[in-house]
Amino acid sequence: MPFQTFDAAATPPEDIEKRLATLRDSFDSLGVDGVVVPHEDAYQSEYLPASEERLQFISGFTGSAGRAYVLRDAAMFVTDGRYTLQASAQVPPSFHIASDPAAAKAWAREHLAGITLGVDPHLHSRNDLERIAKQAEGLTLVKLDHNPVDAVWPARPAPPRGQVRAHPAHLAGRTMTQKIADVRAAMDADALFIADSDSVSWLLNWRGADVAHTPLVLARAFVPKEGEVTVFVDPEKVPDEIVADLAGHATIAGADDLLARLATLSAGKTVAADPARTSDAVLSTIESAGTPAPGNDPVQRLKAIKNPAEIAGMRAAHLRDGVAMVRFLAWCEAHAVGATEIDLVRQLEDFRREAGATDISFDTISGSGPHGAIVHYRVDETTDRVIAAGEPVLIDCGGQFEDGTTDITRTFVAGGDPGPDDFRIQYTRVLKGHIAVARQRFPEGALGSELDPLARMALWRAGHDFKHGTGHGIGAALAVHEGPASISRRGTTALEPGMILSNEPGDYHTGAFGIRIENVCLVREARVPPGGVFPMHWFETLTLAPIDTRPIVTTHMTAGEIGWLDAYHARVRGALVDALAPAERDWLEVRTRPVA
Amino acid sequence: MPFQTFDAAATPPEDIEKRLATLRDSFDSLGVDGVVVPHEDAYQSEYLPASEERLQFISGFTGSAGRAYVLRDAAMFVTDGRYTLQASAQVPPSFHIASDPAAAKAWAREHLAGITLGVDPHLHSRNDLERIAKQAEGLTLVKLDHNPVDAVWPARPAPPRGQVRAHPAHLAGRTMTQKIADVRAAMDADALFIADSDSVSWLLNWRGADVAHTPLVLARAFVPKEGEVTVFVDPEKVPDEIVADLAGHATIAGADDLLARLATLSAGKTVAADPARTSDAVLSTIESAGTPAPGNDPVQRLKAIKNPAEIAGMRAAHLRDGVAMVRFLAWCEAHAVGATEIDLVRQLEDFRREAGATDISFDTISGSGPHGAIVHYRVDETTDRVIAAGEPVLIDCGGQFEDGTTDITRTFVAGGDPGPDDFRIQYTRVLKGHIAVARQRFPEGALGSELDPLARMALWRAGHDFKHGTGHGIGAALAVHEGPASISRRGTTALEPGMILSNEPGDYHTGAFGIRIENVCLVREARVPPGGVFPMHWFETLTLAPIDTRPIVTTHMTAGEIGWLDAYHARVRGALVDALAPAERDWLEVRTRPVA
Repeated sequence: MPFQTFDAAATPPEDIEKRLATLRDSFDSLGVDGVVVPHEDAYQSEYLPASEERLQFISGFTGSAGRAYVLRDAAMFVTDGRYTLQASAQVPPSFHIASDPAAAKAWAREHLAGITLGVDPHLHSRNDLERIAKQAEGLTLVKLDHNPVDAVWPARPAPPRGQVRAHPAHLAGRTMTQKIADVRAAMDADALFIADSDSVSWLLNWRGADVAHTPLVLARAFVPKEGEVTVFVDPEKVPDEIVADLAGHATIAGADDLLARLATLSAGKTVAADPARTSDAVLSTIESAGTPAPGNDPVQRLKAIKNPAEIAGMRAAHLRDGVAMVRFLAWCEAHAVGATEIDLVRQLEDFRREAGATDISFDTISGSGPHGAIVHYRVDETTDRVIAAGEPVLIDCGGQFEDGTTDITRTFVAGGDPGPDDFRIQYTRVLKGHIAVARQRFPEGALGSELDPLARMALWRAGHDFKHGTGHGIGAALAVHEGPASISRRGTTALEPGMILSNEPGDYHTGAFGIRIENVCLVREARVPPGGVFPMHWFETLTLAPIDTRPIVTTHMTAGEIGWLDAYHARVRGALVDALAPAERDWLEVRTRPVA
Repeated sequence: MPFQTFDAAATPPEDIEKRLATLRDSFDSLGVDGVVVPHEDAYQSEYLPASEERLQFISGFTGSAGRAYVLRDAAMFVTDGRYTLQASAQVPPSFHIASDPAAAKAWAREHLAGITLGVDPHLHSRNDLERIAKQAEGLTLVKLDHNPVDAVWPARPAPPRGQVRAHPAHLAGRTMTQKIADVRAAMDADALFIADSDSVSWLLNWRGADVAHTPLVLARAFVPKEGEVTVFVDPEKVPDEIVADLAGHATIAGADDLLARLATLSAGKTVAADPARTSDAVLSTIESAGTPAPGNDPVQRLKAIKNPAEIAGMRAAHLRDGVAMVRFLAWCEAHAVGATEIDLVRQLEDFRREAGATDISFDTISGSGPHGAIVHYRVDETTDRVIAAGEPVLIDCGGQFEDGTTDITRTFVAGGDPGPDDFRIQYTRVLKGHIAVARQRFPEGALGSELDPLARMALWRAGHDFKHGTGHGIGAALAVHEGPASISRRGTTALEPGMILSNEPGDYHTGAFGIRIENVCLVREARVPPGGVFPMHWFETLTLAPIDTRPIVTTHMTAGEIGWLDAYHARVRGALVDALAPAERDWLEVRTRPVA
């Protein structure tokens, strides 16, 4: 079965209208004047199974961030600037589309005043409900006892039943019991509720197949200071040998029992639960039975700091992924002109599979010419286009391997030309930003937000910028987007040795081209330079694939920048050369030559 | 009268012990087991009059950040890392000194459990009281109806009665009535309570003499959407002609009437009050009578964005201050060796006074050799030292002028040598950081936190850093430290055209020397470069004084950095040359020559 499919996923507007009408018919019996339909599911997860795509069902929108307000005579679809174009293409005109906060605020103030709005308390955090309620005078929220969209969605897919498998201890680095002890040592409260499937999968060394391209198991967990962990997961997903492994350490409870079991487990206890990830329904249950304790989920940090076995796995995965990328880039040099964006995705998928990938880590972004300027472009049969010689092509992709997860972006010009001058100048600025982050030593305790501007300085000087973060955390054979660390304006987490993040500045020219250059890097302790006094960290780049040097305007680069690039290419060549066929090896030799 | 004095301000430990004993004797009648003595006064101000120096009275500490907990049999003094040395020198051993949060937390958990602690609700925000209460199990706070320190402080100085004067409209740029209208346009609630004296002084175009070196008037204000503003201020400070100016726009109420009047004014209204600056006593009054509205004080942003008249005044003040600084630096070249740190402060004060300064904007930091490494060093008669040839000297200072406020730091080597090699290398790194910020174009909406790392990159590479922000906002003929914008890790405010901030990276070598290079800069809209697409801003440097080029290791500088420095020096020379005597002019010509 292919990893990626290319169906257009468009919902006919008339279908949306019918669904809206049915939903509105239910308002009287619900006792509401409208409902909120968030993108989030009960796991507050970025990665949704088909059964949780309620927002797509009711609005047609397929992006990863949005929310619908459906009232009797009006409706609003809220998203952010990344999705303005996609929302206006997919969401029918009966929705008012607001893609900036001021527009959403104005609509809400006018339309939500004095009405009663139904919400599903399993899909919203407490803070989120408070924000919703504050949007208009006299707005009343009613917490519904069932989801109003599910009730009018007869063909709703069944929840996923991906079988749980054990992530081997030699790859995980620590056993489940060791990890439970680590988490307990980091806990202040009597117990911890983990709302995040990614964290539960890490804790139990479980992997699964519930959502596309991310091997997490949809599950939640209750971890008391002493006694057994309770795992809330569909029992049919858990094979007997996995259940046997839990004996004495953890018990399985069905996800349907969540609130009742949680009430019993929380009784008289202080229970920590990350306020951003815990639903209002869960928090209310903890409040009734015990006492919510302040503080975030300590698993987040433990999971983000990779142990030596995980680091070894990530290195090995990046080596294999580098082989696939070199074969792909060499193939593109000969075949990209005249091929389509989908052809590239399929070819790349073949090379990754041959390199040992069990999946891709997300749908490959294959954007040629103007499509490269759409940051989240996902090619489908209706958008696919033939690539012309001289066009910039942006490929953002990654693989899931047994031992690690990869994420890489390369931009090249079809046919191997250096490309048009404006593209070359911007390519050079993006590369300067990438290198500024990659080679910067930084002090212990530095936040991700403190590295982010370095990726932008060269672009800022020229009146450019990119409207996304510079980098995100990456899981070890887990989610390609992993918290809590990031290199971005919101990166309030200190970067600690063992954390693995992407470094991916870009530049986007609507209607023309897009540029992004991404490697994955590992935070490491640095040797303090002679005379230095502060403990410092540095980034080791894990990704191994050439960065196209032909577009570079070398006179715009400093000797230090060129030195970094030449050293990186020497490392790539040394690491990959023996794993390649002669023709690919020759290509790599040429493409990793020092910049003149 | 001199602007700066040099008394050691040491309180004999036996006096502290007596005061502690008297304070403890009052605990029974107060019904408490201890009290909290914060540094803050009822205005939550950085700048305290002598009457509000309660923390100094009870602990001996003269720094600007600290807090004492006095219990029956124990006491803790809490401060931060900047003040570790100063606290151990000034605070007697009957206090446990905690200069990091973990140490304070541990003491509090042990000593505050199960006790009753008295607090003065006028001196703490609500959030602050909540933080205090959370520190130990079973800790009860009692809000006292009078300040417990004042009751045992017979010689407490009278509150200041600096006379209010009008800040002329041609310098303020907008009249009081225009500013009141501007604030009302930015208000969401029915009324605004302004707890910040600095904001009230700005709003009313008032200047005063309540605190040293900052011409603000200690005052608070209540601004309803319609009707008259109520100003809470000691009426004896306000001359008749100022009262007459208020007619029809504002009414004066005594500060003693604050809570009673506020209850009447707030009745039935939504009242905005910045939660960080509003005392618990005020907030409780608003809660009883009306409804506190969320959101911060809109005056903060209006005040930070200087209007054309204020910008013109700041430019004029920096021109005059530049003349004083050039005369001072030329004097130092001839006389610093063998002079003392206090000699330098006095000489500089003379030059500033001759340039038209009405005051200094803060006590000059005059740190030679090892004293330069103390970030907040304030020379007094007991610490003063003779400056030797070859020693680095750090001078951080500023002036108050009728039309503007200045702040500048220069570092030079006594006697005019380039200085020792380790100093020169670090000086060059600090200068590279200064220039990186000064010449960086940045996009509309960029936060101060996004510029901060640029000042550190060159230091980070070498294993160095500085433990303070890169820059703070500066008032226009007002406080030298002004919110809300800053260039620092905490700089969550977007930098907008018209904001004026310092740019002051540094490097500190305990026991050896300190380096800081500071200019004041104005955020301006930038011309978008050809091909650029985002609206951009840039910093115009307002400070006009040479940066010593002799210590620079020019081979460590890029051509772009040297180009910035040479252009800056040409501008300094052009601006100041006509205002100088021949000998000073010759010195300036030499010291502003292009870097070879």
